[in-house]
Order: sequence, then C-alpha cells, then structure tokens
Amino acid sequence: METFTAYNPTKLFFGKNSISNLSKQLPKYGKKALLVLGGKSAKLNGAYSDVLSQLELAKIDVVEIWGIKPNPRVEDVEKAIALGIAEKVDMIIAIGGGSVIDSAKMIALCIPSNHQPWKVMKGKEKPTRALPIITVLTLAATGSEMNPFAVLQNNATHEKIGFGSPYTYPTISICDPTYTLSVSKEYTAYGLADIVAHLLEAYFGEGNAALSDLFVISVLKEISQIAEPLLNDLQNYALRERMMWASTCALNGITFYGRKSGDWGVHDVAHHLSLLYDVPHGASLSVVYPAWFKLQRRASKDRIEFLGKEWFKVRTTGQTIEKLKEFFTKIQCPTQLRDLNINEKQKEEFLMLLFKNKPSGMIHMLNKPKLRKLVEFM
Amino acid sequence: METFTAYNPTKLFFGKNSISNLSKQLPKYGKKALLVLGGKSAKLNGAYSDVLSQLELAKIDVVEIWGIKPNPRVEDVEKAIALGIAEKVDMIIAIGGGSVIDSAKMIALCIPSNHQPWKVMKGKEKPTRALPIITVLTLAATGSEMNPFAVLQNNATHEKIGFGSPYTYPTISICDPTYTLSVSKEYTAYGLADIVAHLLEAYFGEGNAALSDLFVISVLKEISQIAEPLLNDLQNYALRERMMWASTCALNGITFYGRKSGDWGVHDVAHHLSLLYDVPHGASLSVVYPAWFKLQRRASKDRIEFLGKEWFKVRTTGQTIEKLKEFFTKIQCPTQLRDLNINEKQKEEFLMLLFKNKPSGMIHMLNKPKLRKLVEFM
Repeated sequence: METFTAYNPTKLFFGKNSISNLSKQLPKYGKKALLVLGGKSAKLNGAYSDVLSQLELAKIDVVEIWGIKPNPRVEDVEKAIALGIAEKVDMIIAIGGGSVIDSAKMIALCIPSNHQPWKVMKGKEKPTRALPIITVLTLAATGSEMNPFAVLQNNATHEKIGFGSPYTYPTISICDPTYTLSVSKEYTAYGLADIVAHLLEAYFGEGNAALSDLFVISVLKEISQIAEPLLNDLQNYALRERMMWASTCALNGITFYGRKSGDWGVHDVAHHLSLLYDVPHGASLSVVYPAWFKLQRRASKDRIEFLGKEWFKVRTTGQTIEKLKEFFTKIQCPTQLRDLNINEKQKEEFLMLLFKNKPSGMIHMLNKPKLRKLVEFM
Repeated sequence: METFTAYNPTKLFFGKNSISNLSKQLPKYGKKALLVLGGKSAKLNGAYSDVLSQLELAKIDVVEIWGIKPNPRVEDVEKAIALGIAEKVDMIIAIGGGSVIDSAKMIALCIPSNHQPWKVMKGKEKPTRALPIITVLTLAATGSEMNPFAVLQNNATHEKIGFGSPYTYPTISICDPTYTLSVSKEYTAYGLADIVAHLLEAYFGEGNAALSDLFVISVLKEISQIAEPLLNDLQNYALRERMMWASTCALNGITFYGRKSGDWGVHDVAHHLSLLYDVPHGASLSVVYPAWFKLQRRASKDRIEFLGKEWFKVRTTGQTIEKLKEFFTKIQCPTQLRDLNINEKQKEEFLMLLFKNKPSGMIHMLNKPKLRKLVEFM
C-alpha cells in the first residue's frame, strides 16, 4: 500500500425527504445563498421548489443563476462568480448533477478572493478558502456530491480538464433518490457508465491496495445487479436509491485509499469527445474504455484478468474485454465511435486534437502511437 | 435502504512515518496536550518517543497519564479528567489501542465542562463539545481510530457499556502499521476476531443495504486472506498494513450506511465475560459469536446462508456456523467457554449477571430464555 490520507468532511444526508435537514443546517453558513442550476429538470423533479421552501424556513435570501450546461463551461462559471460577488452571497447551493455541482465548487472557490476560474483550474492561481458548498443531487453519476473534484470545459482553448482542492468538498450534501426518478433512460445509462468508469480509473491506478480493489469489485457488482432492472423500470425507487449510493461510493475516496493515484487516462481522452462533439460524458467513457482495455491487454494483463474473474467470472483478458463491451451494450451505451455517428474525417480531427492536448493517464502514459492505436480501436 | 447520514470528519494519516504529520497539525489545537497511555508497549513499539519528538517540534507542552487497562475502567478516566482540568490542557493525545483511544474520547468530552464520565456513558449527562482528540494507533482491532465510539467498564456497578457522540470522532488519527509489528500473536488473533465481530454486528443489523453488505464481505475476505499468513509472520509489514486498514474500515461507517443500526447483541453479551473474568475483548467475541449463530439459525437463516455463500463458499446454515467456528479456531481464538477455563459454576455466575444486566441486540432482542440458550451453546 501507498501512504495515504483518508479524509472526507462532507456531511451527506441520504434518503427520502433528506432535504428537510437543510433548514436546520443552513443558518450557520450565513444569510444569503447563490442557487446554481442547469435546465428545467430541477423544476420537474421537485428539487428546486423543495430547496426554496427550506430557504424560506431558514430565512435565507436567494439569488439564482440558471443555465449551467451538461458539459459545464468556464464562461458560465465566470458569470456566476461575478453575480455572487456583486450580491455578496454567503454560500453556494447547487441543484443538479455533476455539471452543476462541479460549477458550484469553482464558483465557491473563486468568490472570496475573486480568482479567475480557468487560472485556478490550470493551477496558476491557488485560492485558500471557499464559501460553503451545499449540493442537492438530481442525477446519480459523477460522485461530485461527496468529493472535492470538478471538471470544466473551455471552448476558447479547446480544453476540458479536472481539478480538486481541499476546500471544494461539499459541506452539506442532500441525496434524495426521489429527485432522480424522472431521469431519462438514456441519461440513466450514461450515469451507470460513468460510475463504472470511476471504479476502473481507481482500479487501474498505481499501488497494491487489496481492500480498495475489493471495494471496487463490490460497487461494480452492485451496478451489474441493478443496471438492467433499473433501465426497464425507471420509476423504481429502491433501484434508484442503490444507484445513487453506488455512484457516491465510486468516487468518495474508499476505492482509492492505499493507491498512489488513479489512472484517469480514459477520462482525459473521453473529455475530447465531449469537447468536439458535445458527447454526453458517460457515453464518451463507454466508447473509450473497451478500446483502452485492448490497448492495455498486454501491459495490464494480470489486472484485467483479476477484474474479469471477480466481476464477470471469466478467465482471459479477451473474455474480459468482450464482457465489458457487452455490459455497456446491454445498458444501451455506445461502445464505438460509429455509434456516436462520428465519421472517418471527424475521427481524424479527434486524433489531431488529442495530439495537440496530449491527454494521458497518470500511471499508464499515453503517447502519440498509443493515442493513434486507441482511436483505431474505437 | 434506511435513511442515513454519511459523515466522518476524522483526518486519518496512514502508512510508514505518518506520525511526521503531527507537528504540522497540532499547533492549531493549542499549546498543551494530555498524553493518555496504557502499559509499556508504547515505549517498546516506538510510538511514545515519536510523539514526544513531534510535540517538541511543535513546541507543545505535555502532561502524561499512564495505566489505562485493556478493558478500560471508568475510574482511570476520572483521574485523567481531573488531571486534564488541573493542568488546563488543550488537546488529548491517545497512544495505544482501542482501550486507550476510547478512554481519551471520554476524557476529551468531559474536560471542558467537568462532566462525570459514567453519567455521560449512561446518557444522563450530555456534553456538547470536546477537546480535540488525536490518536496514535498501536493495535489494530477496535476501529476506534476513525469512529466516535467508546466502551468503558465500571467494576463498581458491574457494567461494561458503549457510547458515541458527534463530538468524539478523533480529529487527527495516525495509523502507522510499524507500531503494530511487536503485537503478540495472541493479541493479533484477538484483534482479527474483533474486526470480524464488527463486520458481523453491521451485517446482522436492520435494513436492506446491499452495497454495505458487499463491503462487509469485502473486509471479511481481506481478513481471511491475511489472518493465517500474518499469525505465522508477525513482523510482516505488508500484512500488518492490510490488517490495520481492514480494522479501520470495519467500523468507520461504510458497512453501516443504509441500515437502521447494527445489532450489537454479541458485543453486549461478550462484555460480561470481560467484566467477570477479564477476558480479552476479541476472545470474548470469538466465544459468543458461534453460539449466537446457533441461536439465530432459524430466525436469520437467509442472512446466515448469504454470508456463508459469499464468505466461505458453503451453502447451508450449519456449514456456515461450522466454518465460522473453524475460522476462529484457525486463528487460535477460543470458541467455547471451556477454552477460557470457565467452569460450570462460573458459567452460572455469568448467566446470572446477564439476567441482571439484560444485554440485548438492538435488532435481534435477547430475553432470559434466549440468554440461557446462548450460554448453553458456548
């Protein structure tokens, strides 16, 4: 095992009506909140009006900013920071999925000292505090509700990158599966793919961490058990609940302890599909992962085989790769670029952007020949 | 799943030389520390002198209190509270295993407002803050290093009971497996039994929590993998490391989320063996658990069978009970009262104390006929 720090200060309230904790929790953080939201789904699923009721109970003033996009843009974050500063808000409340929560983290981090979010993302500015971040989750996928990470996209520079700081853990996290009952089949599937991808990024990280491996396998098994039943019964609360908690556990630390780091190469490559063709995050991952397994079939033979044995009850690397692809297909996620209607010309454009931005794993390094092969496998 | 709150604010530094974090962390908590210790082992394993070096680096004054016993007594805690108040200490540093850490929690909780620890344990007084609690773990067993729980014994009233509060999470927790290399074979085995017992208490709690079940099974498998190799190679750092992290994970929350509560009936009964005959905690659990499985073989049939299938790859309740007993025997823990040299007369005395104190599970209630049967099975 590698030396590590196990620390996660988020207070997460899980289950039906967990929103009712907000009115008691919020007053200690101040008197005015900036609400950060995406599209209209927060009105449809009930989260928005529930939060307003809690704020009224707690006598907390509100400013709202709507329109955070599924692959969140840095310019929207900049607008929200300006609004938050002008309105002198004391806390940020995110109602949404990973995009909204990730944006809220950067907003909370940049408001106190008016930092520029892209400079912060790139590590050129380093804020040392953040406003309290309160999250109300409406989509189970990214795990952002219980970790300090954020991913933002910059269309001007053609980049989509990740970031984490000790100050960007949500302070309070509300996870009521009820809010996810109305998520479409398509986005439920992408959420499942995203969860699986987080588990695999941990698993293919560096460092012997036997128990963390078993935790990875546990969450993979849980996802395998619920995925198809849920896609056939989207209103099933018990399954939504299991998906939501599995999603949190896939990226709240417990699968990483004892490793030097995760790999994150697949995420880094997949982000470029979202950047170029606005591919949903989960769908980009289900395309890149099977190809990455093929690329790694020799270098990560033992790891792929152990995974295959524990997750799919198969023996060989080849069988494991087939099973992974089969899993994504079963949950109706794309597994090849052509499933995304990406043609040969666009494929070349994608490769050129990869060559320019040089995405790579932290452990399994990607270079030009590997990137070319990876794209060929997609 | 049951509604739950996932929250654990402890900052845990794990691995070789993790003690070196202390000097940077401590100054923000004050200028004077009360060191709480058990016997001489903290000098032998190096933890004591390492802590003193860190305190010197951090320029923090020290008062020491030694002599916390393996089944910690409330009177020792009272003495430490008086000393801490007289010396106006700002923080408590525990160097030891569960007994020392549990005592430190109660000391930290009672000092600020001079509460009486036994009244606090019994829920008659309710402190609302505690001094910062810093723990340096030297024995992997109780999980106390990353949870808010404490168990104390009162010889005057013949009681040994548990307690937890939101204020008794360790603030900083140092887990360096090096300090456990010198733990005897016997106490290593008792530690393993204690870890298994924590997992089972969670597993036999109430509430459908599929993922938490898988986490329970994961830690059980990890313990099964390392137990015998470690007992045959006590100086093996890699195995000590795995035992220490498994021990933390067995009682830091992740196996409980989604359940209403754990059961804790076996712990409650087992405490009476420690109380009467000073039986080491782990040894009392390995005696009570097989008997409790027999008692529950009908009422908890499905749960016992699922456990048997996942942990031992066996099918029936009977086989699972046999395998559990076999596991404890393999790791050289007692599984019957006669292994503890408890004779028939003492057995009766034990039963009478159980009748008097009425230990019970929180989910699987124990009454007089059940307690009698349970003791018969031991």
